[in-house]
Amino acid sequence: MNFRFITYILGWIFNFQSGFLLITYIISLFLGEKSGNAFLISAIICAVTGAIFTYKKPSNKAFYAKDGFTAVALGWIVVSITGALPFLISGEIPSVFDALFETISGYTTTGATILSDVEALSKCMLFWRSFTHWIGGMGVLVFVLCIIPLAGGNNMHLMRAESPGPSVGKLVPRVNSTALILYGIYTALTVAECILLLCGGMSLFEAVTTSFATAGTGGFGIRNSSMAEYSMYIQNVVAVFMALFGVNFTIYFLALVKKPKEILKSDELKAYIGIILIATVVIGFNIRSAFPSLGSAMQQSFFQVASIITTTGFSTADFNLWPSLSKTILVAIMFVGACAGSTGGGIKVSRIVIAWRNVRNEIASFVHPKSVNITHMDGKKVKKEVVKSINTYLVLYFIVFVVSVLLISLENYSFETNFTSVAATLNNIGPGLDQVGPMENFGKFNPFSKCIFMFDMLAGRLELIPMVILFSPMLWKKK
Amino acid sequence: MNFRFITYILGWIFNFQSGFLLITYIISLFLGEKSGNAFLISAIICAVTGAIFTYKKPSNKAFYAKDGFTAVALGWIVVSITGALPFLISGEIPSVFDALFETISGYTTTGATILSDVEALSKCMLFWRSFTHWIGGMGVLVFVLCIIPLAGGNNMHLMRAESPGPSVGKLVPRVNSTALILYGIYTALTVAECILLLCGGMSLFEAVTTSFATAGTGGFGIRNSSMAEYSMYIQNVVAVFMALFGVNFTIYFLALVKKPKEILKSDELKAYIGIILIATVVIGFNIRSAFPSLGSAMQQSFFQVASIITTTGFSTADFNLWPSLSKTILVAIMFVGACAGSTGGGIKVSRIVIAWRNVRNEIASFVHPKSVNITHMDGKKVKKEVVKSINTYLVLYFIVFVVSVLLISLENYSFETNFTSVAATLNNIGPGLDQVGPMENFGKFNPFSKCIFMFDMLAGRLELIPMVILFSPMLWKKK
Repeated sequence: MNFRFITYILGWIFNFQSGFLLITYIISLFLGEKSGNAFLISAIICAVTGAIFTYKKPSNKAFYAKDGFTAVALGWIVVSITGALPFLISGEIPSVFDALFETISGYTTTGATILSDVEALSKCMLFWRSFTHWIGGMGVLVFVLCIIPLAGGNNMHLMRAESPGPSVGKLVPRVNSTALILYGIYTALTVAECILLLCGGMSLFEAVTTSFATAGTGGFGIRNSSMAEYSMYIQNVVAVFMALFGVNFTIYFLALVKKPKEILKSDELKAYIGIILIATVVIGFNIRSAFPSLGSAMQQSFFQVASIITTTGFSTADFNLWPSLSKTILVAIMFVGACAGSTGGGIKVSRIVIAWRNVRNEIASFVHPKSVNITHMDGKKVKKEVVKSINTYLVLYFIVFVVSVLLISLENYSFETNFTSVAATLNNIGPGLDQVGPMENFGKFNPFSKCIFMFDMLAGRLELIPMVILFSPMLWKKK
Repeated sequence: MNFRFITYILGWIFNFQSGFLLITYIISLFLGEKSGNAFLISAIICAVTGAIFTYKKPSNKAFYAKDGFTAVALGWIVVSITGALPFLISGEIPSVFDALFETISGYTTTGATILSDVEALSKCMLFWRSFTHWIGGMGVLVFVLCIIPLAGGNNMHLMRAESPGPSVGKLVPRVNSTALILYGIYTALTVAECILLLCGGMSLFEAVTTSFATAGTGGFGIRNSSMAEYSMYIQNVVAVFMALFGVNFTIYFLALVKKPKEILKSDELKAYIGIILIATVVIGFNIRSAFPSLGSAMQQSFFQVASIITTTGFSTADFNLWPSLSKTILVAIMFVGACAGSTGGGIKVSRIVIAWRNVRNEIASFVHPKSVNITHMDGKKVKKEVVKSINTYLVLYFIVFVVSVLLISLENYSFETNFTSVAATLNNIGPGLDQVGPMENFGKFNPFSKCIFMFDMLAGRLELIPMVILFSPMLWKKK
C-alpha cells in the first residue's frame, strides 16, 4: 500500500475542509454570531495539518484500487472528525459521540440527528449541518478532483470508491472533467431549487439550507417539525426536487448534450418513476381517511415517498402513525433507495433491477435449459462481473445489516426500532419507525450503539466495500 | 411438458396418500374415535382418484427438470388438499382456509396453527397433524421413490426438486436406494426418540406424535402449552433430537459406513454446532435474571435455539417476553435454518457459509487483485454454478419475503407481527413474535393473508424454485 500517497490525498482533504470551514466562518460573520469563531479555529487546525501533509508531493505514484478504497475510507473519517470540531469547540454539542454522529450523519447525507431541539443551535451551526449534506452528497473527493487531478491517471480509483452505483462510468474521457460536469449540474439544480423556495416566501437562510439538504438527499431540517410547518407550495417544490436529485446524473448530462433517445432507454429511470408512482398512489389511498381530501392525502404521500426513496428523510407528517401497509411500503423503499449515480443512498434501483432480471433469467433456464442466460439493462448486455458484484454486494449488505441489528438490540428497544434504525442509517435516510420515527431522534442511544450507527452511515454512503476493507485484517496483512 | 407423465406421478401420490389416511383410520379404531371415519372417506376418495390416474402407464417417458419441478409442486398441492379433507369432513376444522392452512403447515413442517385450543381436537386428528410432519419432513416423493422408481432414470429430477439444500447428492448410485437409506435413518432416529420419551413417562400416543413432530422439525404440539408442561428430562430429549434432525443426513450415512474422517471435514456441521453454541450461551446470559439459576436459563435457551434454528418451533417459554437481544438472535437464526439435507427449513447453514466465504473472497480480490478467487467447502472447491445458484436463491428469497410482508401488512398488525409471521412461515418454523408469538396462533388473519402464508410455507419447504415456477407464466408459454 502506498501510505505516503494516501497521506498526501488526506492532506488535500484537510486543505479543502479548511476552505469549507472558512466559508462557514465568513457566513457566521454576516449572521453576527460569536459561535462562528469555532469555525475559524477548526479551519486553522485543518489548514496546518493539510499543509504538513501536502508539503511534498510523493515520488512513488503507484496507486491501486485498494489504495483508492483506503484513501476514500480514511478521507471520510477525516472530514467526519474535523467537521465535528466546530460543534465541540463552540460547546453547542458537547459530547464527542454526539458531535461525531451529527457530522457523519451530515456528510453521509443521512440526516438522522441526536438533537431533540434543533432550533436551539446557532444559525451558523445549522448552516454547517446543511452544508455537510451538500458536500457529502456528490462526494468530498469528487469535489477535490474537480480542481486537482490528485492521483494522476488513477483518479478513477478514487471516484469509483466514492460514487454510488454498480457501474460508475465516466461521462467524458477525463475524470476531472466528469467531476466538474457532475458538480456543475449539481450546483445548477441546487440554485434552481433555492430560487423557487425564495419565490415561496422562504428567507434566504432557510432556502439555502433547505436546498443543500435536498440536493445531498440529506434531510437535516432547521426546524424541529422538519417540513411540516411550511406551505404546500414549498413542500411540493422540495418533494419534486428530492425526486430530481434521486435521478442518475448521467440522465441530466444526456439531456444537456441533447440525447433524449438515450434517456428513454434508461430502465433504471423507468423503474424509479414506476416505484414512486405506485407507492404514492397505494399509500395515498391507504392514508385517505386521515386527510381532508384525496388530493391532500396524495400530496402528503408523494412527499413522504420521494423523501424516503431518495433517502432524504424530510417529513411533513408523523408516518409512524400511518397504517401498517403504508409503513411497510416506506420501509421497503428505504432499501430500494435512489438511482445509481445520484446523491441518494440505499441499495439503488439499478442493482434491484439487474438482480431481479438475473433471477428471472435463472428461473427461465430451469424451465428452458437450452435458453441463453443474458441479463439486459438499458438495451445492452450486462457483463457477468457486474451481476456477480451486485450479488456479492447484496450478500455483504445483508450481513452488515443483520450484525448491526444484533448489536443494536443489546439496548432493549423494540424490534421495529432496532430494525428501522439500522435501515435508516445504513441506507442514509434519517428517520425510521417507532423510537426513531420522524418525531423522534437518535439521542437516546448509548455511545456503543451510536458507534454502530456511525459505521453503518459511512458504510452505506461508500457502498460497503471501502469501510469493510478498512476494518478488515486482510488489508493490513502483507501478502 | 409431459402432462401425461406428471398426472401419472400425481396418481401415485394419491395412492400413497390413501395409504397414509388408511393408517390413521386404523389408529382411530384403536382410539375408539368416531371422527376417524373421516379418514376412511378421504382414503377412498384418494384411492379412486389414484386408480384412475395410474391405470395406464404413460408411453412417453421424456421427463426433464421442469417436469420434475412441476410434478413436485403439484404433488405437494395434492397432498395439501387431500390431507385437509379429514378436518373438513369431520367438521373439526370447518373452514376450508383453516383446514388447508393447518394441513400445509403440517406437511411443510412449519407447525403454525390456526387453532387457539389444540386440545379440543380428537386424538386421531392430532395424530394426523403430527403424521403429516413426519411424511413432509423427509418428503412425500422421496417416500414414493423408496418403493416405486417413478420416473425411471430421471428420478433425480424429482428428488432434487423436493430435497432441501444447495447441492443434493446421491448417497449411493441409485436414487431409490438413496431414498430408502434416508428414510431408514429417519425412521431409526424417530424410534430412538420415541423410546427415550416413553422412558420419561410419556404415554405412547404422546411419545409417537412428539417424535413425529420433532423428526420432521415440524412443531405441532398436542397441548396448548406446546412443550412447557413436560418434565425437564423430556424437554432435554426433545431439544437434543431437534438438533439431531437438523443435521445433514449424509453425516449419519457417513457414520454408518464408518467414515468418521469425512464427518470431521464438514464445514456445515461445524458452523451449525458453532451457531447453536454461541446463540445458546448469549441468550442464556441475556435471560439469566428471569430464571432461578444460570443452568435452567441455559437449558431453556438451548431448547429454544435448537427449536428455532432447526425450524421446529416447539416452545417451552414465551420468548415474546424475552429481552430484545434474545428475540433478535432468535429472529436471525430463523433465517439461518438447519443444515442442507436435513428435515429442517430456512436458508440453510451451508448456503450461508458458502455465500459468506464467497463475499470474503470477493473483498480479498479488491485488496489483492491477482489472488485467485475460489470458494472452498469441506476441503473441496465449490463449483461456480453452485455459488451462482446460491446467490440467485438468496435474491429470490428476499423478493418473496418482501412481497409477502407487503401483502400481509394489508391487515393492520404491527411491523414485528408482519415481519416475523412471514419469517416463521417462509422458513417453516411456526411461531414468530408479537401477534404470532409462541402463545398466539394464526387464526386471527383473514383468508387472503392465510393464502399468502400457505404459499410461503410451500415455497419455503420446496426451496422456492418449484412453487415460483408453477406460478410463473414462463412455464405455460410455449417456446
